[in-house]
Amino acid sequence: MKTVRLIALATIATVGLTPSMQAADPLPSWNDTAPKKAILTFVERVTKPVAPDFVPAAERIAVFDNDGTLWSEQPMYFQLLFALDRVKALAPQHPEWKEREPFASLLKGDITSALAGGEPAIMQIVMSTHAGMTTGEFDTIVREWVASARHPKTNRPYTEMVYQPMLELLAYLRANGFKTYIVSGGGVEFMRPWTEKVYGIPPEQVIGSSIKTKFEMRDGQPVLVRLPEINFVDDKDGKPVGIHQQIGRRPIAAFGNSDGDLQMLQWTTAGSGARLALIVHHTDAEREIAYDRTSFIGRLDKGLDEAQAKGWTVVDMKNDWKAIYPFQTR
Amino acid sequence: MKTVRLIALATIATVGLTPSMQAADPLPSWNDTAPKKAILTFVERVTKPVAPDFVPAAERIAVFDNDGTLWSEQPMYFQLLFALDRVKALAPQHPEWKEREPFASLLKGDITSALAGGEPAIMQIVMSTHAGMTTGEFDTIVREWVASARHPKTNRPYTEMVYQPMLELLAYLRANGFKTYIVSGGGVEFMRPWTEKVYGIPPEQVIGSSIKTKFEMRDGQPVLVRLPEINFVDDKDGKPVGIHQQIGRRPIAAFGNSDGDLQMLQWTTAGSGARLALIVHHTDAEREIAYDRTSFIGRLDKGLDEAQAKGWTVVDMKNDWKAIYPFQTR
Repeated sequence: MKTVRLIALATIATVGLTPSMQAADPLPSWNDTAPKKAILTFVERVTKPVAPDFVPAAERIAVFDNDGTLWSEQPMYFQLLFALDRVKALAPQHPEWKEREPFASLLKGDITSALAGGEPAIMQIVMSTHAGMTTGEFDTIVREWVASARHPKTNRPYTEMVYQPMLELLAYLRANGFKTYIVSGGGVEFMRPWTEKVYGIPPEQVIGSSIKTKFEMRDGQPVLVRLPEINFVDDKDGKPVGIHQQIGRRPIAAFGNSDGDLQMLQWTTAGSGARLALIVHHTDAEREIAYDRTSFIGRLDKGLDEAQAKGWTVVDMKNDWKAIYPFQTR
Repeated sequence: MKTVRLIALATIATVGLTPSMQAADPLPSWNDTAPKKAILTFVERVTKPVAPDFVPAAERIAVFDNDGTLWSEQPMYFQLLFALDRVKALAPQHPEWKEREPFASLLKGDITSALAGGEPAIMQIVMSTHAGMTTGEFDTIVREWVASARHPKTNRPYTEMVYQPMLELLAYLRANGFKTYIVSGGGVEFMRPWTEKVYGIPPEQVIGSSIKTKFEMRDGQPVLVRLPEINFVDDKDGKPVGIHQQIGRRPIAAFGNSDGDLQMLQWTTAGSGARLALIVHHTDAEREIAYDRTSFIGRLDKGLDEAQAKGWTVVDMKNDWKAIYPFQTR
């Protein structure tokens, strides 16, 4: 028996695998440039039981920013477009909005004037559209919007404006025992209704910004009511805090695209052993939009410098990705 | 081939399984009383793909209180005993404590006087012992305490004061595709260093109370510093809030032992389909301590009434459990 097995092994070694027996490329939408190689090398290092950098599956935590890393964020964050749609939908119940900024400008279609009020204006829009209902009611509102709303430029559902190479990367990491998390500045309850279907990421692996909720009994039934008060801002310094609060262990891989992800990348790479830090650089003016150091949305300035200084992986979308969106691969 | 398989199947069906092929009792420390039957029936209902109550594995979320449900909580919460030990350890660095309450009484060994100040006194003790260090430093402090501290009555490590029947229940639920979570009023960072080893529950499935943390750069290295400020109280009304914040879906089974778990049980059972709500009732004066409606620690009063009214499962520790602690089964 032993001899037979040895001959069989020798045959495989000599003849090699037939093409159909070779593993399919796990990242077909990535060109064979440096980022793809960095990903494949990292995964091999941490998963090979014999390697010095082996990491047990339970500790293979990978964190992904969402806006600009897993889906697009232009011409503005999709959650802000959701809030604007909600203002229009709720306007009949708020006749006073016709006279009150930022709502008055918004309802006239003048988004620039509406947002000129900066963060306080945005907070007013968010709180008036995201609070005042139960968590179950908000879940339904988000699901209906995701099913019906269309991106102003591509006229596609927002959940089709996701990056095909990143979908492949998520699946590849999970196939290698990684637990994939979203760590986003966006609202956690705005993401959870659709992340499982779109990214394969279940609700309990979504970390995001949140408003406070309050437990109440209504007609003998317990509900959680969404209050117009910030609970947690999962951006910049907040990302390591959110990761620690919700996961309780340090990730070994982090993926972002803007300065809002910088502290998450620093926190991830400060651990010992093999680490992967990757920044998606929006360089493709033709297939998407090119923006970085001076952009209002998704500014990437300090992050680009630190990536250079620390040798983090930077994806040049134009040159490193064969396709941007899933609908471009069909 | 088909005939051979049919004969083989017929043989198995007729002859039946030999005793050694039958599944072992998954809950050997539970007597064959109502609670055990309720658990087995519930798990069968939600896991049988044909049953009307089938729940996909991803939605099989089970939440467990910790103090008094998974481990003991008498003569007082173990985390409070940890804080008292820390006060003693830190006293040399705080000469002013000799004159200041609640520390002065504590250092004289007069715990009753120290805690007479109620919640403000407890908060002072907690903040002076739980804040002011990095998350990594606190992790080390907890690990060292857990490894060396002994329970005042049994002289055993605290992590041996866990309930054997509940360990079996955790393992049984996980073997049936459940994801098991801790949802405790205790500090999340006090539990995470040891829950994986003791309960098989990884850090990311531990929800608890917390103080705020702050991201900082120290000598070019990012750290999270623990601040003397409450972030979240995961008790009573807070438990459904914590569950929603961290898991994002409603559990189908909840396990508690005190009125602090009431809202978690209400929230869990308010969902549609099969639900399991179970309360551990401390009735065993001999093997543990008997306490319920009038206890200062782990009071169970409203919960007992509501369990009666709603038909929740109540475990009578004295009559339903063959053993309390793992060391009693050896």
